[in-house]
Amino acid sequence: MIKEGDLALIYVDERRSKVVKVVKDKTLHTDRGYLKLGDLIGLEWGSKVRLSTGVTAYVLKPTLVDLMFKSFKRATQVIYPKDLAYMVMLSGIGEGSRVAEAGVGTGFLTAVLAWAVGSRGHVYGYEIKKEYIDVASRNLESAGLSGRVTLKNKDITQGIDEQELDAVFLDMPNPWDVFPHLQNSLKPSGSLVIFVPTVNQVLKILSHMREFKKLTNISVAELILREYQVSQEALRPKSIGVTHTGYVITSRFIKEP
Amino acid sequence: MIKEGDLALIYVDERRSKVVKVVKDKTLHTDRGYLKLGDLIGLEWGSKVRLSTGVTAYVLKPTLVDLMFKSFKRATQVIYPKDLAYMVMLSGIGEGSRVAEAGVGTGFLTAVLAWAVGSRGHVYGYEIKKEYIDVASRNLESAGLSGRVTLKNKDITQGIDEQELDAVFLDMPNPWDVFPHLQNSLKPSGSLVIFVPTVNQVLKILSHMREFKKLTNISVAELILREYQVSQEALRPKSIGVTHTGYVITSRFIKEP
Amino acid sequence: MIKEGDLALIYVDERRSKVVKVVKDKTLHTDRGYLKLGDLIGLEWGSKVRLSTGVTAYVLKPTLVDLMFKSFKRATQVIYPKDLAYMVMLSGIGEGSRVAEAGVGTGFLTAVLAWAVGSRGHVYGYEIKKEYIDVASRNLESAGLSGRVTLKNKDITQGIDEQELDAVFLDMPNPWDVFPHLQNSLKPSGSLVIFVPTVNQVLKILSHMREFKKLTNISVAELILREYQVSQEALRPKSIGVTHTGYVITSRFIKEP
Amino acid sequence: MIKEGDLALIYVDERRSKVVKVVKDKTLHTDRGYLKLGDLIGLEWGSKVRLSTGVTAYVLKPTLVDLMFKSFKRATQVIYPKDLAYMVMLSGIGEGSRVAEAGVGTGFLTAVLAWAVGSRGHVYGYEIKKEYIDVASRNLESAGLSGRVTLKNKDITQGIDEQELDAVFLDMPNPWDVFPHLQNSLKPSGSLVIFVPTVNQVLKILSHMREFKKLTNISVAELILREYQVSQEALRPKSIGVTHTGYVITSRFIKEP
Repeated sequence: MIKEGDLALIYVDERRSKVVKVVKDKTLHTDRGYLKLGDLIGLEWGSKVRLSTGVTAYVLKPTLVDLMFKSFKRATQVIYPKDLAYMVMLSGIGEGSRVAEAGVGTGFLTAVLAWAVGSRGHVYGYEIKKEYIDVASRNLESAGLSGRVTLKNKDITQGIDEQELDAVFLDMPNPWDVFPHLQNSLKPSGSLVIFVPTVNQVLKILSHMREFKKLTNISVAELILREYQVSQEALRPKSIGVTHTGYVITSRFIKEP
Repeated sequence: MIKEGDLALIYVDERRSKVVKVVKDKTLHTDRGYLKLGDLIGLEWGSKVRLSTGVTAYVLKPTLVDLMFKSFKRATQVIYPKDLAYMVMLSGIGEGSRVAEAGVGTGFLTAVLAWAVGSRGHVYGYEIKKEYIDVASRNLESAGLSGRVTLKNKDITQGIDEQELDAVFLDMPNPWDVFPHLQNSLKPSGSLVIFVPTVNQVLKILSHMREFKKLTNISVAELILREYQVSQEALRPKSIGVTHTGYVITSRFIKEP
Repeated sequence: MIKEGDLALIYVDERRSKVVKVVKDKTLHTDRGYLKLGDLIGLEWGSKVRLSTGVTAYVLKPTLVDLMFKSFKRATQVIYPKDLAYMVMLSGIGEGSRVAEAGVGTGFLTAVLAWAVGSRGHVYGYEIKKEYIDVASRNLESAGLSGRVTLKNKDITQGIDEQELDAVFLDMPNPWDVFPHLQNSLKPSGSLVIFVPTVNQVLKILSHMREFKKLTNISVAELILREYQVSQEALRPKSIGVTHTGYVITSRFIKEP
Repeated sequence: MIKEGDLALIYVDERRSKVVKVVKDKTLHTDRGYLKLGDLIGLEWGSKVRLSTGVTAYVLKPTLVDLMFKSFKRATQVIYPKDLAYMVMLSGIGEGSRVAEAGVGTGFLTAVLAWAVGSRGHVYGYEIKKEYIDVASRNLESAGLSGRVTLKNKDITQGIDEQELDAVFLDMPNPWDVFPHLQNSLKPSGSLVIFVPTVNQVLKILSHMREFKKLTNISVAELILREYQVSQEALRPKSIGVTHTGYVITSRFIKEP
């Protein structure tokens, strides 16, 4: 049952879908007509509604990905679901894991980590810029995930406060500067997962990993997502789109080299 | 601390890594020397050990992906982590979700779903072939996930026993034959996620979805994973590898068209 | 030596490069300054020139690809060089070949075929729309290729006038309607090469080829081009770009099934 | 008409196709039966023949790509058609062009260049290893292209003998060592096209280009070929295949920086 204050995905068609907060006296305006949001209260999720023009829309419970792309305020470049999902899966974290992450930025990775560790896990997010913390904080709040996250306005290259972490995720220009701090924070056998956009960074990371000696089982990969135009008569990948996001580097931390 | 009976990933190098059960009187034989598994008991995860030849290896706690590829017995084609992770993330499921899946096959998708829903969620796995159930059952057991899964030797095209599911995942040749059963099993606003290898199936799915009318917010995508040769001096994607797995189709179930 | 009337590529930087006709009293205006085109006359190709602001530019002899993208008037969707080059190479045509093509459209494929068959070969281009013929005609003229091409304002599904062709290239919505006309126009052992954007068309082509029985050695492929941001400090594929063009289908014509 | 001594492509099916020399008393043996090659003499290209078992085969005139993959003796890694075709097209060469190339290796690139420049053009191929020259020489001979090629058992990093070349193609580990020799051999406005397999080489090339100052209009790209399983009922990209070949770098030579 939809309640006042819920976030709802109003889906008209592929190009017209929006996450809104269900508030009594608010109205959603689209180029296909408007919708009085108060009318949604009491409806079941998945219900059909009609815009003022008679055009059909559906009220869906937003997934985390819906929230990220259609509700989160954006302050920085973000990591895409294809990469986020892959990073989380390869890291080996799950229910109850404790992980650190930097930089938080808009909070996409933070949110996905919080989702993955569940209510008994915890995410420690490091971010130098105060304004990003504020944005991420609101985003996590709106996704109902803030209870699992501690955001810190700190430079992770100066140290990691936590111990015995299951994994560390780095999405920052100079991830190698964090390596010295893994010693006292990341469990041996834990995962270090890095996301960087350029080939030069990948090479520099590999070079620092070799020198650091305490990371093994290293993998480097990139994922190319081909989204299709959903058409039964003219099925084909979309013509224009994202052609590159970044490289995912995974590794495992060891006690001694 | 590693205990007798634990599964451990013995990592020598990229091509030599194996998941073994730590048993007192067993020995792991590799082309680089052997390792007495009893010697691992009492070591910390992430420890360095030496094979009989002096070659270095590391003892890592296997991730779910390690288990799937290096320990699970394989009975069928499997879905790869890139696709599994993406399917789970887009579905919107998480801690506590209840999901159905068919066909179970080797149990890769089952395991990942069980991982995603956590200890308070549940996965109902349908599989026609008894022998696959047995394989999947052992695999899930070994990954410590069987408590969250009910495997059923049933044809899902004949019906879904559960109600109010958060999502249904289909990896089978004729997923459209399951559509009529969604009505009484999948929550409105819940996700239907399908994985198929051929373009013909994608077209047939789109055609049946249009006729069925109760699925919306449809997306079709494929993911191309490019794994790199991990080399600081000669970084490049691997030359030969998997060039196609399948298409991921997501959609949301609605109360009425 | 650059002469009046030559086409020249004025290259300032990756985003500022233009093909111009060298005419005495004309001026090229760019957001970096202007260039009097008459000043180019008598210079060697590859010379450095300065815009009015002192910014450096180079005067390059345009390649066919430069002409296509920076000088050809565009009337329709075009085929990209990655696909054109692959189609030509797989077709087996070369110096002296005689080929037919439809639809001409803007003339990109026509131009590339004319380039490939050389001055002793010939291209017969079919196009239903008179206005496209005019555009293509001017484009081929400007590339100095019109002597090798006969453009015909005819519907190729009504018949092919030529005999003993070495190859037929089809870039049109319904290529299967041309199959019956291959009998009297394409040499046995010659190539039929088709370019189509959708999966549905590929399936329909395969279906018609099977029924037609006189095409063998069939291949279907797509090419993904990843262009890199040319930067020594931040090498990476470009973020946004073309994600799909179409499918290339090649086949060989046989005397009898 | 097929004559004694011709090369012919005997096509049985996708996995069974072979280029043979039509010689009177020779027999082609396949796992589907044998074929007396003398029987082909006098047949038309594109004819149907039957193996000893009654299985159908077709006699096709081999394209250059057929020859390269089904007849050329292989001595080294080769460049694939997707890359070769793209390199040639972007270089701007054509009928009558004069180009240099190193290293010749098996001669795939040499053959494609010879094809592109036609009977009035010429290719100068540099190769350090005498044994590769012999292999390439025989390959070019068999393709009827040796008249357009001069193979040189010389180290191109020691100098290029020719002047006023239209383009230089480099497929060698250290292409930057050739840059100093472009001055007296490559026409201003001519193309330098490089093919290398690793990211490190791309970075080193960009670095040397910047220092060298006389190359502009630089592009870096890679091409991913997705070959499909040709099946009307189960159309899909092939599962396993080539996932990486190399990077294509193009640039134009200028008179002065």
